Amino acid sequence: MDSISVKTSTNEYAVSIGPGLRFQMERFINKSYSKIFIITDSNVEPLYLPDVLQSLEPSFPVNYTVVPAGESSKSARVYFDIITEVIQSGLDRDSLIIALGGGMVGDLAGFVAATFMRGIDFIQMPTTILAHDSSVGGKVAINHPEGKNLIGSFYPPQAVVYDVDTLHTIPLMEIRSGYAEIVKHSFIHDQPFWEDIEEVDLTKPLLDDQLMNHLFRGIQVKANIVELDEKESNIRQYLNFGHTLGHALESELGYGKLTHGEAVAIGMLFAIKVSEAHFHTELPYQSLFEWLKRNHYPIALPPTINVNNLINRMKKDKKAKKQSVQMVLLRELGEPITESIEDFTLIGLLEQFLRELVDR
Amino acid sequence: MDSISVKTSTNEYAVSIGPGLRFQMERFINKSYSKIFIITDSNVEPLYLPDVLQSLEPSFPVNYTVVPAGESSKSARVYFDIITEVIQSGLDRDSLIIALGGGMVGDLAGFVAATFMRGIDFIQMPTTILAHDSSVGGKVAINHPEGKNLIGSFYPPQAVVYDVDTLHTIPLMEIRSGYAEIVKHSFIHDQPFWEDIEEVDLTKPLLDDQLMNHLFRGIQVKANIVELDEKESNIRQYLNFGHTLGHALESELGYGKLTHGEAVAIGMLFAIKVSEAHFHTELPYQSLFEWLKRNHYPIALPPTINVNNLINRMKKDKKAKKQSVQMVLLRELGEPITESIEDFTLIGLLEQFLRELVDR
Repeated sequence: MDSISVKTSTNEYAVSIGPGLRFQMERFINKSYSKIFIITDSNVEPLYLPDVLQSLEPSFPVNYTVVPAGESSKSARVYFDIITEVIQSGLDRDSLIIALGGGMVGDLAGFVAATFMRGIDFIQMPTTILAHDSSVGGKVAINHPEGKNLIGSFYPPQAVVYDVDTLHTIPLMEIRSGYAEIVKHSFIHDQPFWEDIEEVDLTKPLLDDQLMNHLFRGIQVKANIVELDEKESNIRQYLNFGHTLGHALESELGYGKLTHGEAVAIGMLFAIKVSEAHFHTELPYQSLFEWLKRNHYPIALPPTINVNNLINRMKKDKKAKKQSVQMVLLRELGEPITESIEDFTLIGLLEQFLRELVDR
Repeated sequence: MDSISVKTSTNEYAVSIGPGLRFQMERFINKSYSKIFIITDSNVEPLYLPDVLQSLEPSFPVNYTVVPAGESSKSARVYFDIITEVIQSGLDRDSLIIALGGGMVGDLAGFVAATFMRGIDFIQMPTTILAHDSSVGGKVAINHPEGKNLIGSFYPPQAVVYDVDTLHTIPLMEIRSGYAEIVKHSFIHDQPFWEDIEEVDLTKPLLDDQLMNHLFRGIQVKANIVELDEKESNIRQYLNFGHTLGHALESELGYGKLTHGEAVAIGMLFAIKVSEAHFHTELPYQSLFEWLKRNHYPIALPPTINVNNLINRMKKDKKAKKQSVQMVLLRELGEPITESIEDFTLIGLLEQFLRELVDR
């Protein structure tokens, strides 16, 4: 088992990564909680809930709730219903919430923990590769019909328990989605990390050692950044590399057409293209492009996609300030920087980029 | 104008107390906010909203919303509707929310600020005496049908701007309610503070100097305690002096029968009674009792009130731990301490106390 420690303004927590951790939950719980309440979803429940229950029930009174899998459960309605269940299960300030699932479950359960009785302890148990990203850093939220994650808090967990066994049951599309965020962590960090990822073949069964190594290093990049800027006033923005166009594509195409990571993958390609133009430099555009193709990432976008709509959406991004689009660019691989890009420049580059994707 | 500085784990803010502050809001805003959104209620709107708008509009784009006065606006429904208005008004992470009103508005608007886009700045502008308490200390919340303040955060404001002019328009019942919390602050602090309050006559127009002095000292007591224990793990519990029975009375009689402070006043009398029995000491029970009578606090409770129900409610208190009732007692005036009281003892003392109240 590997472990990374993350310091926040209010606590310090360990991210533990290894096989079979779901059978050893008592190792990660070091308070005498009055009750434990597990929040999971309908995909994860049949696979892993019984194991987690079995490892907790000898020591704690445990209740749980299962929400429908999918982003639509990150709603105010579901949030409020869970709060009601939590109250009716008799949880108090000395109780613990466990988020067992992917990013949706972590965000939802984390926001319940952040706001029930003004905040009680919670533990993240991510079960997807993508959640290596969302489970670390303390961002929790639910969606509003007007936009994703508009209601939320910064609320760090007490621990992140990452059982890599659970990653072998996720579909290829979700593996791609999660690996895109690992790629992002490598691009904003350094060349050797990216070169290691370049060797992975996502279409074959993942090798435990390789996967754990990539997750460990990805989490380390993220942890270092959030320790320096917990509330995203500054360098935490670097984690949005690839996300400006990524988010715009997700909402323009309609959620679910591309996974989050697939949209971010295209967003990273574009961010590299813009970086090359902006800094008159050369970056591994070609090697990322080929790796994405080799691993069957969807790359060509529908020719009907509208450049002006995309740019308007990039401006509406939660992180947008003022009028022009803010993008995280790379001066060099491993040297992220936030820059304002004028509409005129952006339109030209985006049109050229979209044409190139179709041509290839 | 007087000012008290409050340090929290994440910021430091000033509580400014004085007349006419609502006309000088620009003095208290030291960032270039993209937008300001004021949340107020239907009682306060006609009295003070125009003044606040007038003092802000030259410098900022301002929107506002008015919720119905009364505790029922502290609901998930109203909260969500305000979030929607806030989004539609175009607020972003660089915007400011102002809570203009009593404790209900402060709690509700504070929770909106705490959770919109994972937290944006907010300023408390309390307009009641009771809110001298709730506006300082960073507790924000909404109610759940199962209990008050069950959904909330610890989220400090950027500033508290307390215009004492606004306190002359509140009804006598609300003056009594607010003064009960000042009395509480004196009892957990020291004798001289209580002796000063003892001289006030709430049935006559309040004298500005005296009121400001009492508010200032009450806020200082509170600020000192929350600085030492922001998240209520420890000595912040002392602020619950009088609240264990107070909360039980409020819910047993039905909210609205007694104001919060009136219920706390009876709760303090009882807490003093229990303290005297527990520590074999003598406390100013009689002088508090007489002050309450002189100022027309409702003291006699309906003879039908059920002692067992009250004790069960005292056990359900959000702050209750384990099985027996926890109460804040006084070893001496100014020396609070949290103690567990056995049911057997509590029943006897409560029955005797209720009989005495009726007899007098």
